[in-house]
Amino acid sequence: MASYQPLKEKVAGESQTRGKPIRCRAAVSRKAGEPLVMEEVMVAPPMAGEVRIRIICTSLCHSDLTFWKLKEPPACFPRILGHEAVGVVESVGENVTEVAEGDTVLPIFIPDCGECMDCRSEKSNLCSKFPFEISPWLPRHKSSRFTDLKGEVLYHFLNVSSFSEYTVVDIDNITKISPAIPPNKACLFSCGVSTGVGAAWRTAKVEKGSTVVIFGLGAIGLAVAEGARLCGASRIIGVDTNLEKFDVAKKFGVTEFVNPRNCGDKPVSQAIVEMTDGGADYCFECVGFASLVQDAFASCRKGWGKAIMVGVDKPGAMLNFSSVEMLHCGKSVMGSIYGGLKPKSHIPVLLQRLVDKELNVDNFITHEMKFEDINKAFDLLAKGKSIRCVMWMDK
Amino acid sequence: MASYQPLKEKVAGESQTRGKPIRCRAAVSRKAGEPLVMEEVMVAPPMAGEVRIRIICTSLCHSDLTFWKLKEPPACFPRILGHEAVGVVESVGENVTEVAEGDTVLPIFIPDCGECMDCRSEKSNLCSKFPFEISPWLPRHKSSRFTDLKGEVLYHFLNVSSFSEYTVVDIDNITKISPAIPPNKACLFSCGVSTGVGAAWRTAKVEKGSTVVIFGLGAIGLAVAEGARLCGASRIIGVDTNLEKFDVAKKFGVTEFVNPRNCGDKPVSQAIVEMTDGGADYCFECVGFASLVQDAFASCRKGWGKAIMVGVDKPGAMLNFSSVEMLHCGKSVMGSIYGGLKPKSHIPVLLQRLVDKELNVDNFITHEMKFEDINKAFDLLAKGKSIRCVMWMDK
Repeated sequence: MASYQPLKEKVAGESQTRGKPIRCRAAVSRKAGEPLVMEEVMVAPPMAGEVRIRIICTSLCHSDLTFWKLKEPPACFPRILGHEAVGVVESVGENVTEVAEGDTVLPIFIPDCGECMDCRSEKSNLCSKFPFEISPWLPRHKSSRFTDLKGEVLYHFLNVSSFSEYTVVDIDNITKISPAIPPNKACLFSCGVSTGVGAAWRTAKVEKGSTVVIFGLGAIGLAVAEGARLCGASRIIGVDTNLEKFDVAKKFGVTEFVNPRNCGDKPVSQAIVEMTDGGADYCFECVGFASLVQDAFASCRKGWGKAIMVGVDKPGAMLNFSSVEMLHCGKSVMGSIYGGLKPKSHIPVLLQRLVDKELNVDNFITHEMKFEDINKAFDLLAKGKSIRCVMWMDK
Repeated sequence: MASYQPLKEKVAGESQTRGKPIRCRAAVSRKAGEPLVMEEVMVAPPMAGEVRIRIICTSLCHSDLTFWKLKEPPACFPRILGHEAVGVVESVGENVTEVAEGDTVLPIFIPDCGECMDCRSEKSNLCSKFPFEISPWLPRHKSSRFTDLKGEVLYHFLNVSSFSEYTVVDIDNITKISPAIPPNKACLFSCGVSTGVGAAWRTAKVEKGSTVVIFGLGAIGLAVAEGARLCGASRIIGVDTNLEKFDVAKKFGVTEFVNPRNCGDKPVSQAIVEMTDGGADYCFECVGFASLVQDAFASCRKGWGKAIMVGVDKPGAMLNFSSVEMLHCGKSVMGSIYGGLKPKSHIPVLLQRLVDKELNVDNFITHEMKFEDINKAFDLLAKGKSIRCVMWMDK
């Protein structure tokens, strides 16, 4: 796909909507698990500290699917899902100076205020000003900017709600990027690619020559593989029960495969410990099963192995480890949210590596379609047929 | 106590016993929980790769007490306990060139072969050649060098068995030290002080200005405090239900105290999170209760807090963590055995800090007595009356 040219006339036109509600198309999730409804909605102007964005394209991430299917809180309906996208600033609210109308931006679900103790620390990406939560509201004013044409409030999702031609996002959830980066690639950095690449780069700090195991070869697992490859890992072992994923995974640098169903009587961790002569340096859980975190921990090399939890299990799921194994084996366990990345400082670094062709995301984009075909995109992902499906608003 | 002078005539005399069994006194643990029996035993010459040591003094560590009381395996009887000691090399087995007769040495329970992948790595202190295990034998030849006067085999303990005037230890469990270091201080580095100081220095890598919480103010907890102070921690919060320990702990740099029984309806972790404005940077579990590791984890600051497990719970004890808290909070959990220290390279560093008066261990030594009074030492430790009781062989 040719690189995207920002539409200058459209940007100029956008200033005419400044301060007014915008009527546009959105895909509304009205009931758990039922097809999204493509309808017209009203998007209020940004309040202080917020930014209204025209979405260029959005992709579909597994968390959208999870919250689309979920019947219990924190799910809520009607809601505008979507949190992996790229857009152009249409207008800004009071006190917003970091971006201006016409800027190309990534909305990113975790905030980066730049001022709190966490945002100022190199060690954390968990803003204390707006602690990460699954909320139906925008974080600063605890309210929605969306209504349907009957005036009913539509809920936000993960601070982004990108399944709409226009959305409102807090400035702390915005990272300005170069308009020269192809939008179908840029949008992936808003969640999936960054989460996986970051987990290897920032959370685990994978070292050159190391051995990495990845449980689950979905988009996140494949992004971990890409991150591990970038960090110089020499062995990247993929673990999945879906054999079809193995051929795909090779394109992402996965060098070896383990199918837990082919390990006979052995637990998968034992098979991994044997093939790695004592265990892997880094083991990533990218499925979202707490029990697999235990397998990842057991697959780690004693002395220094790290188990990194990237997948999201259901609320209430517990992790259980043998205290003797924890004490006697010099291993550690850690969680990684958004790959440990600080949106405003680390995403530009990753995008530069994309521009420099060190980081390759082409293989993530298995499907592209029009926004109005979004229910097809849900179907493809639910069936495991897509890695990333990019939906264009304007095509 | 005046600094110890090595007895030259004794060292010269020792070479006369080379290659022959030595008859000497030992405190034999013949039955779980019953007083040790001071009796004469035979100590065979060292086999290849082993060293026979004349113990100068030995101190009593809580693990000795645990294995003295324990009725089930890996406990076994009759056994010579003791693993915190300093001694002089009496003779060496074949192929031992690293130490010679008359050298002052620390026997250390974890091996450091210097050749395996772990010993060569800066990241691990878990030798692969002789993996750490609670065994009744010496690691290399899987046999005992001790018999009683009836010829019955006496079992070894933690590769050291220092409750004997002479013992045999593998060369991989020996660190040569300067004879100028007072033995009553040196022996503490063979286990307790190193375990605690190392947990702060090597495992957690406590940073200057950080906040540290220590669950359990026994010898190990106090050694963590000393390590945290050395690393420049600005707040060191001690948690213990025994109020008497608070006055003692001040001498070790503990700056604040929390008694979980005085927290009202709050869990202790909530009290700690409140007094540290969000949680501590490093939380150490030094009691040996798996459930306290969860409290330590909950007391850690989101974003970067580390929970470090130092205490030893019973085999089979499980650690349970909420998967959401692990994933969303950027915290990690790790175990620390022997403080993450590599005996042959890190102990000389710690001993130099002792010589330079940066590290202070005087306050650990609450009691000194003759070896034959060892049952008094057990009684004092069991009642929580001592931190370290040093027993001299030759006084």
